[in-house]
Amino acid sequence: MNTEAFGQWMQIPVVGAPLAGGASTPELAAAVSEAGGLGFIAAGYKTADDVAREIAGVRERTRRPFGVNVFFPVRLPIDQAAIDEYTTELAPEADRYGVPCGDARWSDDGWDAKLELVARERPAVASFTFGCPDGSTVARLRGRGIAVWCTVTTPPEARIAAASGVDALVVQGSEAGGHQGSFDDTDDAAIGLLTLLQLVRKATDLPLIAAGGIGNGQGIASVLAAGASAAQIGSCLMLTPEAGTSPPHREAFAGDAPTALTRAFSGRRARGIVNRFMRDHDDAAPRAYPQIHYLTAPLRAAARDAGDVDGIHLWAGQAYPLAEVLPAVELVTRWATEASAG
Amino acid sequence: MNTEAFGQWMQIPVVGAPLAGGASTPELAAAVSEAGGLGFIAAGYKTADDVAREIAGVRERTRRPFGVNVFFPVRLPIDQAAIDEYTTELAPEADRYGVPCGDARWSDDGWDAKLELVARERPAVASFTFGCPDGSTVARLRGRGIAVWCTVTTPPEARIAAASGVDALVVQGSEAGGHQGSFDDTDDAAIGLLTLLQLVRKATDLPLIAAGGIGNGQGIASVLAAGASAAQIGSCLMLTPEAGTSPPHREAFAGDAPTALTRAFSGRRARGIVNRFMRDHDDAAPRAYPQIHYLTAPLRAAARDAGDVDGIHLWAGQAYPLAEVLPAVELVTRWATEASAG
Repeated sequence: MNTEAFGQWMQIPVVGAPLAGGASTPELAAAVSEAGGLGFIAAGYKTADDVAREIAGVRERTRRPFGVNVFFPVRLPIDQAAIDEYTTELAPEADRYGVPCGDARWSDDGWDAKLELVARERPAVASFTFGCPDGSTVARLRGRGIAVWCTVTTPPEARIAAASGVDALVVQGSEAGGHQGSFDDTDDAAIGLLTLLQLVRKATDLPLIAAGGIGNGQGIASVLAAGASAAQIGSCLMLTPEAGTSPPHREAFAGDAPTALTRAFSGRRARGIVNRFMRDHDDAAPRAYPQIHYLTAPLRAAARDAGDVDGIHLWAGQAYPLAEVLPAVELVTRWATEASAG
Repeated sequence: MNTEAFGQWMQIPVVGAPLAGGASTPELAAAVSEAGGLGFIAAGYKTADDVAREIAGVRERTRRPFGVNVFFPVRLPIDQAAIDEYTTELAPEADRYGVPCGDARWSDDGWDAKLELVARERPAVASFTFGCPDGSTVARLRGRGIAVWCTVTTPPEARIAAASGVDALVVQGSEAGGHQGSFDDTDDAAIGLLTLLQLVRKATDLPLIAAGGIGNGQGIASVLAAGASAAQIGSCLMLTPEAGTSPPHREAFAGDAPTALTRAFSGRRARGIVNRFMRDHDDAAPRAYPQIHYLTAPLRAAARDAGDVDGIHLWAGQAYPLAEVLPAVELVTRWATEASAG
């Protein structure tokens, strides 16, 4: 086991996954860090100013290290006709929720401003999703004393990230909830975490953070035995009082519906609990991120406000049935005890 | 770790996965058992007489314990029109390979005869795939001193198998090559191994054998830490000289094409390396097992004889890039050393 790789930040080899879209909060990040793990702020979809406020919010609550996750902007080829067709398909949803669809635009999610913010604020770790910054950007952040992590879902992505000089890789398995952090957005079968850890370890000696489907101490012990230095946990923190998980999303976690990967909500493969919107639109959803994210955003906001569990993205990893309604500090502490006892 | 659960059979917590369709041989089963693991004979698709000869073949080579895997016969609802359409779709394949399609029939794969054979021959373990025998059948085998294992892919299947009185569960993750051993054949997302181990452990205290995507000592250590008593390895034994893996199948293992779950070859979800046949027919393939298996069998046999890697089912788990061309005893021994060193 290589848990000493992150010994300067973590007494407990647990990373609180960045959960863009509302579930991650300063309260949750601070609680995970206070428990001895490493909490994360999710910068995705927020303005740099909002992220700055969240960073300040974490620092009000803890003096311990934490991380910030930023979406790396990629502009993959899209099929405008397919977006137009999907917009037409969603017209009845707009009627149902009484709001128009959003503007299916591309956006870099405020990349420059967020990168500057991170460089200025110097969290312990900056992690990236959907791609890896180039070597000079990585070097610049590292020169500011910020460790750089990159999310990877395949061995080739691991090799690209390693070549950019990152400090560690977040190895995200197919089980993970929310978006697959793939550099591209192919239909290739997502690789299971345990397999991916073995394959990535063959490709690089970098420290690995295992992500996807880890829900208790048994899961943590398992990825440590597989050579990871820490386990990143998302879904199983989403029922904590500190999480910003919406009431209908919490409600869905109490059920036992399966999860699936879908592009229906955002135009990029993401895992959520199967609901009506996913069933109705998965087949037609084009590969177009973040265009479809913005297209469906008003519908999802209206559905969330209406408490309609069938109209929102219910991001969840395959381990979501293990989620418990307990304070984050209590959970993280118990997981660490379970993991050591194994 | 609970590796003592199988201490009477295994010095090394490695089970050689039963690989129906040719890869499993008496030589491979005997080698895995001689190395201190537990080798398996795959009874699927063979006659009971052939299985009897294979059992004798193992016993000629080793006095150590081994197992026999039998397909549990289930007759799921089919759509005859869809089978007819698929037969029409495959007409050009029949032309290409110069053989007619096979008879798309249901079969119980010689269930009664194989069950009698197993009861008579008394291997150390009888494992079952695609379903669980009823309590009286399980009790009868156990009364003969045969341990009964059942393959499961979900927590509900684990509960059903546990209620039948089996001795242990083979927990098969989404990463596994070949058929998913599910009792039903739904489109629900297959669950990753690490997640499934956590979920099944919540459902039962039975000893677990972890299967799917395990390819080296690191993977074995990981599933043991997750609470499994042994790791079942298939793909990473397929390049051993003892395996009956066909030359084109071995050739495909040398590449780096992704794997996917498909019904194109057999009418039931199974994971293989993506090739032309899978790409061309995956979308149209109906849920109809073993009817589609028999329908495509002559095409696949002809493609195999022609050495055409694009016309056969290339069953492989997601860890297949870890497979090595080495004798099975050497591999199993090294994996055990790696797993203990972790």
